[in-house]
Amino acid sequence: MIKAIQDYYDDDFSYCYGCGRLNNDGYHLKTYLNDDETISRYRPKDYHIAIKGFVYGGLLASLIDCHGTGSASLFYARDHRIKVEPHNAPRFVTANLNVNYLRPTPLQKELIIKGALKEINSRKVITTIEIIINDVVCVSGEVTAILIPDNFGKQ
Amino acid sequence: MIKAIQDYYDDDFSYCYGCGRLNNDGYHLKTYLNDDETISRYRPKDYHIAIKGFVYGGLLASLIDCHGTGSASLFYARDHRIKVEPHNAPRFVTANLNVNYLRPTPLQKELIIKGALKEINSRKVITTIEIIINDVVCVSGEVTAILIPDNFGKQ
Repeated sequence: MIKAIQDYYDDDFSYCYGCGRLNNDGYHLKTYLNDDETISRYRPKDYHIAIKGFVYGGLLASLIDCHGTGSASLFYARDHRIKVEPHNAPRFVTANLNVNYLRPTPLQKELIIKGALKEINSRKVITTIEIIINDVVCVSGEVTAILIPDNFGKQ
Repeated sequence: MIKAIQDYYDDDFSYCYGCGRLNNDGYHLKTYLNDDETISRYRPKDYHIAIKGFVYGGLLASLIDCHGTGSASLFYARDHRIKVEPHNAPRFVTANLNVNYLRPTPLQKELIIKGALKEINSRKVITTIEIIINDVVCVSGEVTAILIPDNFGKQ
């Protein structure tokens, strides 16, 4: 697979502001699997400021969130031997997002977002995530993602 | 005090994408203290989508984050008997953000964000936060906020 997992979501699941290819206004995060690690990259905009010179924490949380659901899809597909093809990638939503802001994250640099698998079962995937600049981890987090249930939005 | 706490931050601390009055592109979240509860309101944009019809989780995390730091400032000022005036409101940054997505959050409605004090000491304030639509809690969270240190960004 050379495309990002987000390019294999069904169209109905591709409007996410953080990672949906069909959301014209969003971040279009793209997540790839490289051995046992997932990776995304994002360059914040000039206005994504917390305090001048540093990246807005809400954006960093958003990137961890979408990287977490994308990573969940990649690990789940691998674990369940799903051959990922257009429109069939498993789609996860976040149940819990936990973010540790370890140090201020400098603006104007590309962020590297990496994920590792912590736990996986039939409908749930937990990943640990790091946001890295120049080999320094600025933010760490954990995402508990749930495979989208058939009754999503009808509870 | 009738203005929001964000209107009392010093200019240097007012460029936050989530709540800074001087960030022209941001959300301009405004947080008020009402007895023992803090409150903000926000109406997501049409493009703040997770899956069609539901609010993007990264935005919800962002709102909890900024509501948490604003609430920390309000509770800290009250606890330390600081008379809040323009430019002197204590400014907090987030050390930990924990978000539970309890149910899908419908788009196109005003979100009510409420906060309560959990723990406070000389430099740290922990608040519990809820995002509510039509009296239903869709998202809950907790924010550990730290008073901005003098060496912020120099670590």
